[in-house]
Amino acid sequence: MYYEKLNRLFSPNAIAVIGASDSFDKLGYHVMKSLVKGNCRQPIYPVNPNAQTIWGIKAYPSIMDISDPVDLAVIVVPARRVPEALKECGKKGINGVVIITAGYKEIEGEEGKILEDEIKSIAEAFEIPIIGPNTFGFVNITDGVNASFTYEFSLIKNGGVTLISQSGGFCHLCGFLAMEERMGMAKLMSLGNRVNVDFPEAVKYFLEEDEATKVIALYIEGIENPRALFETIKSAKKKKPVIAYKAGRSEKGDAASRFHTGTLAGNYRIWKGALRQAGILEVNSSEELIDTAKVLDICPFMKESRVAVLSSQAGPGMIASDTIESLGLKLSTFSDKTQENINHLLPPFAIRTNPVDMGPAWYSPETILNILKVVAEDENTDGIIFIAIFASANLNLLADMEKIIKDMEPFNKPVIACFNAPHGVWDDNIKHIDGKKGIAIIHTPERAARAMANLYKISLSVS
Amino acid sequence: MYYEKLNRLFSPNAIAVIGASDSFDKLGYHVMKSLVKGNCRQPIYPVNPNAQTIWGIKAYPSIMDISDPVDLAVIVVPARRVPEALKECGKKGINGVVIITAGYKEIEGEEGKILEDEIKSIAEAFEIPIIGPNTFGFVNITDGVNASFTYEFSLIKNGGVTLISQSGGFCHLCGFLAMEERMGMAKLMSLGNRVNVDFPEAVKYFLEEDEATKVIALYIEGIENPRALFETIKSAKKKKPVIAYKAGRSEKGDAASRFHTGTLAGNYRIWKGALRQAGILEVNSSEELIDTAKVLDICPFMKESRVAVLSSQAGPGMIASDTIESLGLKLSTFSDKTQENINHLLPPFAIRTNPVDMGPAWYSPETILNILKVVAEDENTDGIIFIAIFASANLNLLADMEKIIKDMEPFNKPVIACFNAPHGVWDDNIKHIDGKKGIAIIHTPERAARAMANLYKISLSVS
Repeated sequence: MYYEKLNRLFSPNAIAVIGASDSFDKLGYHVMKSLVKGNCRQPIYPVNPNAQTIWGIKAYPSIMDISDPVDLAVIVVPARRVPEALKECGKKGINGVVIITAGYKEIEGEEGKILEDEIKSIAEAFEIPIIGPNTFGFVNITDGVNASFTYEFSLIKNGGVTLISQSGGFCHLCGFLAMEERMGMAKLMSLGNRVNVDFPEAVKYFLEEDEATKVIALYIEGIENPRALFETIKSAKKKKPVIAYKAGRSEKGDAASRFHTGTLAGNYRIWKGALRQAGILEVNSSEELIDTAKVLDICPFMKESRVAVLSSQAGPGMIASDTIESLGLKLSTFSDKTQENINHLLPPFAIRTNPVDMGPAWYSPETILNILKVVAEDENTDGIIFIAIFASANLNLLADMEKIIKDMEPFNKPVIACFNAPHGVWDDNIKHIDGKKGIAIIHTPERAARAMANLYKISLSVS
Repeated sequence: MYYEKLNRLFSPNAIAVIGASDSFDKLGYHVMKSLVKGNCRQPIYPVNPNAQTIWGIKAYPSIMDISDPVDLAVIVVPARRVPEALKECGKKGINGVVIITAGYKEIEGEEGKILEDEIKSIAEAFEIPIIGPNTFGFVNITDGVNASFTYEFSLIKNGGVTLISQSGGFCHLCGFLAMEERMGMAKLMSLGNRVNVDFPEAVKYFLEEDEATKVIALYIEGIENPRALFETIKSAKKKKPVIAYKAGRSEKGDAASRFHTGTLAGNYRIWKGALRQAGILEVNSSEELIDTAKVLDICPFMKESRVAVLSSQAGPGMIASDTIESLGLKLSTFSDKTQENINHLLPPFAIRTNPVDMGPAWYSPETILNILKVVAEDENTDGIIFIAIFASANLNLLADMEKIIKDMEPFNKPVIACFNAPHGVWDDNIKHIDGKKGIAIIHTPERAARAMANLYKISLSVS
């Protein structure tokens, strides 16, 4: 029953917005904008006793006045009015609620805590799963339901990464980084005060029930019962890669976490060990989170840690190689057959051993992709970093490669590519190649290498 | 005399392109494009015996046929014809030469080495400083002279960072990252095979002679006499921040370096110590190089290591704080007066101690900037990380802040800001605020924190 309700919450048949508004200054305006401009295909019911229509859609004085069934209600009325609204949701038979309103456990004084306890018992009585309170909401990219106050999340590419965050601000940061890096997402959300949907419930749902989710990324500040999360992941029926970014590592950061979410972040060293034991890969920055999740969504796992670096320019290939080795991976030694094939493709003055300098072949996209193909078939190589940096003379390189890649077989080894160019020059080609045939494009050679190292670590624990 | 000639090389009165071409397939086409489309204001003389005009400009059979004086010649003819072209440059009285042509010391076999030795002795006889051979050239952003085969470098913002690179590919990567991050540059170049202008000569020139250069960034693979570089920096009459990215750290990377530039990169641990002793700050990625150089160009130095984090969203403030503390900086404790002022500006339910959660003031750009001002005056704070992440409801925040910042006094402490938003939304405001009043905008909270840590390290050694 519980998971059935979470399913109705995240993929609702219809959505009511309690506190919907036509005024830009109200969050109820922005939630409506997200649903309407985000092209939500399900019926939207604005609820506001003081309006006939909102965003041009017929409004209802109360959720009780809507005659059709409604799965999800998004609540944005002031804190004190939320319990009453929630009760009405219960009576209406709502299956899930998002409470965006803040001003509960996270603020000073008793009133917020009392209100939150009230919300909790109403939710319990009616068996309603709640995201929040004190959240920006969630976005279901898979089905086009943007139940948040930020419309722009609807511009994120559809894909397999689900981000479960304890901070709305962090979710916004990562959502925008995801757009920049063309990372495909399934869902993103901030759990807010976690009145009854906490990390274990959310993670279990996305591990076991949501087909669209291929990779789970967590942003954790502090939780009361971390063990429940770890046990959920260890005992899950389905295995999916789980990565986590743990904030509140330092003393002062920890104190801030206590204020922010009402819980202490706790001793970071204990967390570090516990994450590792639960098979969760820890990442150390927002960009590492994005890069790693993206690669896990696109690329196959690695058998061993032997990496080939193929670069159209020697310098960027060197820094990728340095990073590969500094993170504990190995540069592969090509088999005799592979080396022979490369020697046929490149002139003798090029560096033809790993890291391969494909510079002399910059005028020939066919040659460059033949090298990639030959190395992808090398028995001593488990993953490939593939680099091309723009220069005025290789303007057409990516367009030509795009055409050839379209008809190639998918690579059965991870290919992490790095294509750098001035804004506007290769953008469309990068967009078209990214994610195809197992190729993940990452912004710099060093970040590509780090994502490969993380892919290898996850390959060891998941496969 | 030598520096006078380097000055004429980098800021020439007129430029000849030996091997200029109208055919896209030739590098001589792209060098012409860089100069012409890069809006070079100095006379350009295409040299090519087989054409009347090139890029619509009158062409000359030989550089000797140009009657006016010419400071700089860019040579792109095939390797074997370069010595003769260089001799003609000498006879013409050219002050500096860029040899883009490759195929010398860096290739297998004796011929390349013999040709390079010949070039070296001709340069010596005529006392001509040479950038290259085997280089993409250089770009003087300050004066608008793009003597390279990549026109797009002309789009880089004018500023104080000079990049001296041992790899053309790395220079391209960094140039494009610089554009993305709006880093202002003075000059960028690849030294190529360093026939007579090596790191010590270039660094000395940009330290002591080039007023536009405020910060020097080096990308080093391997050099024969690192001590000469270190001595140059230690004994320089002018002190400017110098940062370095050392590649070829690992065994295989080192081997690649030997092929790429003809020199071994050498033992990385020895390099690490030597860089530190010479007061050169080491960076560990291309993005760290860009972020650090940019902050060094824009921000004042730090007195001590006490940092305040002011964020419009708690989560991103936490990850900045974590990074600040993990890199050895301290989160400042505000003076009583500062804390009192902040308490007047923010409601009691906000986190008003460091890291400050300015969330409740998101609707008021005045309040947010007043907090920034108050903290910039705090006697216990040496630097500020200032974060605002977009949400649909704070759409106008940056436009409003831009208007207020325009009339503010410059900050006498570093303010590293992080403004994240979907593409297109805040881009113009970010562009207008970046670099003004001592505010440097860096892409993520963690990178902002790392750039602050590097600024502190340099502050200790330079100021």
